[in-house]
Amino acid sequence: MRYALYYWSGIQGRGEFIRLALEDAGADYDDVARDQGDDAMTPFLEGKHEGALPFAPPFLKAGRLVIAQVAEILQYLGPPLKLVPDGDSRRLYAHQLQLTITDVVAEIHDSHHPIASSLYYEDQRSEARRRAKDLRENRLPKFLGYFEQVLERNGGRHALRQHSYVDLSLFQLMSGLDYAFPRAMQRLKRELPLLCALSQRVTERPRIAAYLASPRRLAFNKDGIFRHYPELDDPR
Amino acid sequence: MRYALYYWSGIQGRGEFIRLALEDAGADYDDVARDQGDDAMTPFLEGKHEGALPFAPPFLKAGRLVIAQVAEILQYLGPPLKLVPDGDSRRLYAHQLQLTITDVVAEIHDSHHPIASSLYYEDQRSEARRRAKDLRENRLPKFLGYFEQVLERNGGRHALRQHSYVDLSLFQLMSGLDYAFPRAMQRLKRELPLLCALSQRVTERPRIAAYLASPRRLAFNKDGIFRHYPELDDPR
Repeated sequence: MRYALYYWSGIQGRGEFIRLALEDAGADYDDVARDQGDDAMTPFLEGKHEGALPFAPPFLKAGRLVIAQVAEILQYLGPPLKLVPDGDSRRLYAHQLQLTITDVVAEIHDSHHPIASSLYYEDQRSEARRRAKDLRENRLPKFLGYFEQVLERNGGRHALRQHSYVDLSLFQLMSGLDYAFPRAMQRLKRELPLLCALSQRVTERPRIAAYLASPRRLAFNKDGIFRHYPELDDPR
Repeated sequence: MRYALYYWSGIQGRGEFIRLALEDAGADYDDVARDQGDDAMTPFLEGKHEGALPFAPPFLKAGRLVIAQVAEILQYLGPPLKLVPDGDSRRLYAHQLQLTITDVVAEIHDSHHPIASSLYYEDQRSEARRRAKDLRENRLPKFLGYFEQVLERNGGRHALRQHSYVDLSLFQLMSGLDYAFPRAMQRLKRELPLLCALSQRVTERPRIAAYLASPRRLAFNKDGIFRHYPELDDPR
């Protein structure tokens, strides 16, 4: 199966969680908007294709299926890409963990856009300072501490019985947070040895290492989910 | 199968999406925290049970399985409760729609808590006014317009081929918004005839009608997701 991924061409964004799974598995895929421009997504979003109507990118075309929502795409790709263990209960848990990653990613986005995605950062900077402080002091310790506990309960190496799309997404989460909040993460990571070691191991997987060194891996930037504004990080 | 639902006892909240599915199907279930108090959830959240570790309520116990995240619980319950059509592509679409409901529910919550869930509303009231304005003017028209289009593409009566948990959740979404933003909804509903008619039909389903008239249906209140603060609604 050759997959077609549709996501904004200029950012890692939410599409990166899918891309990491496709790359890690050596899957055959087109990154359509990067090849053809963002307009290639429009007919799907305007409902001009049969089948599922996506609310927003990313979405995946797999044969005639159109699948949207990051966690659902990964739930769909997990078995054919061998990125999820066998067994209903483990697959349910994988999806639950991915949905919790979805939740924290939305909160991270809102730390720089607490009022409206449609406004510039500069028009909500004072609100962003307040929200980012709560993210750093309350929400990230809670979410990351939860994922650390998930690893610990499972022997430490993986979120599930074996390597999975959840491990790849946890790497992406930690990488994005390292970029956006370097000072806060230096503090928080003291309590997150298992997440740190997992992230390091993911970067050493041969296909991920090759991907991260390739031009396909865009740099983090100020249009994505993870944005670095020094005033939103821990004070010096 | 007798299910056990775990959710905060004093609010409809996110648990209500699960409760509506269980009630509509006439399923056998315990609403554990309502019977035993919220402390009954603690051992699960502290990781003292085997299996999946929930990040937060609601979670469902089904035999030995523990399942968290609203959309995942509904994805799991759909087939046995006959609340989702047959076929992989329709079930994927049902889940995608439910995940999009999850997204708008989070945005609705953040309209009264744009800075931090841990702070009182009164400590983020001015930010809430700005965020609620964006919700009413941009985000609700976009999300509700999307769901209206989903109905329209499908013949108008249901989100999917037949009645499903998605229809029940769309009813809950519309009900909550009617409570929280009565003036904005009066305006928005002019463009949402299919969503309005669907919500009405859901209230006429015999088991739902019985549930809504029972003491099991808590009233909306100012501790839940949908909160009515007149200053966050359209100006008079």
